[in-house]
Amino acid sequence: MKKNSDNGEKKTAVKRSTCPIACVLDLVGDKWTLLVIRDMYFLNKSRFDEFLASPEKISTNILASRLKMLEQNGLVTKSQYGRHSQRMSYELTEPGKSLAKLLRRFAQWGLENIPETATTEFHEK
Amino acid sequence: MKKNSDNGEKKTAVKRSTCPIACVLDLVGDKWTLLVIRDMYFLNKSRFDEFLASPEKISTNILASRLKMLEQNGLVTKSQYGRHSQRMSYELTEPGKSLAKLLRRFAQWGLENIPETATTEFHEK
Repeated sequence: MKKNSDNGEKKTAVKRSTCPIACVLDLVGDKWTLLVIRDMYFLNKSRFDEFLASPEKISTNILASRLKMLEQNGLVTKSQYGRHSQRMSYELTEPGKSLAKLLRRFAQWGLENIPETATTEFHEK
Repeated sequence: MKKNSDNGEKKTAVKRSTCPIACVLDLVGDKWTLLVIRDMYFLNKSRFDEFLASPEKISTNILASRLKMLEQNGLVTKSQYGRHSQRMSYELTEPGKSLAKLLRRFAQWGLENIPETATTEFHEK
């Protein structure tokens, strides 16, 4: 997984410790990153406008920053879609998918422990 | 799990959606909360000064805010320790422990996918 040191995204620039849990949180410990991964893995979304349309209403600048960080850290790959388009499609890499799979357990915990969560059916790729 | 509406902690005041993953992230989607839970569950810590001593160097105000939020949401209970002390001891509730257990999978993912993470041995309660 690549380190990113040449841009404004500081999420993985400095490790707080060598603890793998802390390092995972350095990468995805915020309210949005794992939702983008959820959208890709369980909801089969791949395009910028599809992520924007999710009910949590991520902002365009946060979404762009998270996609860039995920790509720089090897969790997502970006490719052009359409013959005459500059629009990009995003897909999870194998490490990204293996992280996404862990979210099912979080979803189960949320359903069991947080009121008013819906029994959404997730369809894994 | 209780809602907290009468203090400055906004983590669970408003749900972004009914998605259980989003709701879990509303609660613990930051760089610090799950580290406090890690300390309690895997490292057998229970006191404020013990959490402060962890290598990630959480600040006192963030630690106090996270402990308060965790208590208000039923993941942690607080009790006095020592006969003449006002010092508090914090313990995970059953929902807190069931969330903590999920961190083992995150640790495994980190060890496999993030360079320079250490093979810390976690001792579950």
